[in-house]
Amino acid sequence: MSRANGFSAARNGASLGRMDMDRLVALDASDPLAGYRDAFALPEGAIYLAGNSLGPPPRAAAARLAEIVGSEWGGDLVTAWTRRGWIDAPARVGAKIAPLIGAKAGEVIVADSTSVDLFKLMMGVLETRVERGTLLVVRGDFPTDLYVADSVIRLMDGWRLKVVERENLEAALTPDVGLVALTHAHYRSAELYDMARINAAASAVGAWTLWDLSHSAGVAEIDLGRAKADFAVGCGYKYLNGGPGAPAYLYVAEALQPAVWSPIAGWMGHAAPFDFSGRYRPAPGVRRFLAGTPPILSLLALETALDAMAGADPALLAAKARRLGDVFLRLAAELCPGLEPACPGPGQMRGGHVAFRHPDAHGLSDALAAKGLIGDVRPPDLLRFGLSPLYVRFQDVGRAVQLIAAALG
Amino acid sequence: MSRANGFSAARNGASLGRMDMDRLVALDASDPLAGYRDAFALPEGAIYLAGNSLGPPPRAAAARLAEIVGSEWGGDLVTAWTRRGWIDAPARVGAKIAPLIGAKAGEVIVADSTSVDLFKLMMGVLETRVERGTLLVVRGDFPTDLYVADSVIRLMDGWRLKVVERENLEAALTPDVGLVALTHAHYRSAELYDMARINAAASAVGAWTLWDLSHSAGVAEIDLGRAKADFAVGCGYKYLNGGPGAPAYLYVAEALQPAVWSPIAGWMGHAAPFDFSGRYRPAPGVRRFLAGTPPILSLLALETALDAMAGADPALLAAKARRLGDVFLRLAAELCPGLEPACPGPGQMRGGHVAFRHPDAHGLSDALAAKGLIGDVRPPDLLRFGLSPLYVRFQDVGRAVQLIAAALG
Repeated sequence: MSRANGFSAARNGASLGRMDMDRLVALDASDPLAGYRDAFALPEGAIYLAGNSLGPPPRAAAARLAEIVGSEWGGDLVTAWTRRGWIDAPARVGAKIAPLIGAKAGEVIVADSTSVDLFKLMMGVLETRVERGTLLVVRGDFPTDLYVADSVIRLMDGWRLKVVERENLEAALTPDVGLVALTHAHYRSAELYDMARINAAASAVGAWTLWDLSHSAGVAEIDLGRAKADFAVGCGYKYLNGGPGAPAYLYVAEALQPAVWSPIAGWMGHAAPFDFSGRYRPAPGVRRFLAGTPPILSLLALETALDAMAGADPALLAAKARRLGDVFLRLAAELCPGLEPACPGPGQMRGGHVAFRHPDAHGLSDALAAKGLIGDVRPPDLLRFGLSPLYVRFQDVGRAVQLIAAALG
Repeated sequence: MSRANGFSAARNGASLGRMDMDRLVALDASDPLAGYRDAFALPEGAIYLAGNSLGPPPRAAAARLAEIVGSEWGGDLVTAWTRRGWIDAPARVGAKIAPLIGAKAGEVIVADSTSVDLFKLMMGVLETRVERGTLLVVRGDFPTDLYVADSVIRLMDGWRLKVVERENLEAALTPDVGLVALTHAHYRSAELYDMARINAAASAVGAWTLWDLSHSAGVAEIDLGRAKADFAVGCGYKYLNGGPGAPAYLYVAEALQPAVWSPIAGWMGHAAPFDFSGRYRPAPGVRRFLAGTPPILSLLALETALDAMAGADPALLAAKARRLGDVFLRLAAELCPGLEPACPGPGQMRGGHVAFRHPDAHGLSDALAAKGLIGDVRPPDLLRFGLSPLYVRFQDVGRAVQLIAAALG
């Protein structure tokens, strides 16, 4: 077994040795992100490894929501839209997401759900590219991404959906492709695309790229600017911890902003929404991709979560997430021989979770939950464990693997 | 001056007589809805007449949000989707809106914003009616309704947008019209369409109807079923008091549900979202119009607001709203001769607000706000006062008109 990362698993049997747990605790002690754990309200006595599905509440959320309801909504009522800055919240919160994904502040806005944002961008982009009506996607990407792609194509005569296997992606980049839409980190396998490479290959044939960052923002290194990404979307409730159904965000590279319109011309995307003009004039910049009035309570809860992780260096987040996963996979390989890894191995590019195949994934997951280890399951046989670098400790990974080993018997 | 409703304004000068205020107080005392006022947190010392823009918080909202954050999100984390019924919330909250608009429980779902819901329905409907590609709208309806109509039409070759003056609506119902989309209560004038009549006229030429109920639900009599409406949308944050940017709702008449698809095929509208199937299969019923994951905090705040008005008879709400408006208009006619009414007069069909024209509407509105009367302004010269029957009292109307009279000098 490799001793990369200064860590090794107990070799003699199904339980983690004292020395190894000491090493995990030492890793936690020297973790530059350790202080962020206190900013989140985690369930007592449990190990929460489902933050890839729903992040835990920031501790500040309860007080902030009480303030919003009591003082802002209750105190200023409709005037809070300007007095309390609600009207600017989509752009302000977008600007707080920007540094996590290597975007400029004016390139990101919070709006709607990931599904709706995918629709707006896919449709909005293809509309401007009548000579290139092919939308390229990869089979097995997150279902909603494929459903929305399919529904966009179904609406338009002459547009085509090209669905290819992951390994054939680059070969499928032909000059008819207007847009290639990809899930950056796979929701099952946690495989990561080499974003800069795909963007360059797409650009070489004149195609634009649209990245779904839902499973990678906050846990993987993302530099949309340097990687020359054209468009992106992502959800707010996984590694960004924005709360159940937190609004999503979308990114449009600055240079492309004047070229693309939203197909859903709602009043909040108007250049002057409060003129109530009869004629639609899109706002300059990314704000044109707003549609209706944003759900302020959910949006400001997301802001609270972003504030709770403010200052966390995205490179450190990604490095810790990768190391947590490496440790998990190495320990599991030693202690849990019945568990088949279903994600990239130690040292490889990977999103924020690890995944394993097991014939009774549901039963095993339930047994683990009963012991205080919360992961999740994707049908038919996939166990996932999300490793948010903001609050998961190396010692949690050690305990998690011990619990799995014990449950496997 | 008419003495309908048992009320008359002071005739001698610019202030309300003692006897008239006594009558207003007596009206409040016999108001069967008076008890609902306590369910809302209103600003002390102010008269809040902007609930047509943003309703005040229900008193229960702060505690409910604390419970959601602390116990549901914080306690059950991702398992709260099933354990706490989040997954059913769009349909459950929709079912609570249904009785307010004369719909069956299975005909209403809460989803997205009004703009996005308008888009889904306009696009989804026209897609099924290729032989009738005309979308009919009325000039001056709420801007977002017209913007979205325009953006839908712009997407589709062969579809046409027909924009007519209000008085020409029925004449414009020709057999090429697939859908007529109307704002039920006008956001400026509070004019109400005779919904049953328009639906019948549309039906006579084979057109379907789509009603935006944002400015009428909760304050006007709406019986979508009896009036034979085909589709509707509405927002959650005006007279439904769901909070800033509360999610919107949409209605699809039961008989039409199998015929119409959402153009935004997001995973929550799938028949079995948690199968993560690669192929989209729309849910039966109105649930197919869900797209992405709903913003739970905002959605459950809306539910709290609907619970706060549970049991309020929609007919009583409409009757009181109309009477509040009648009293307002009669008093204003007496006491505020400088104020030109800009809405249907006493005894006429009207939405939940009254409107007036004034050359310095902004200045007057600011002066009134400084005296504790909160209304709002729509450019260039319109003052609006929203009269929610849940918490506005007849004595508030009396004081409001006195304040306006004093400000006018």
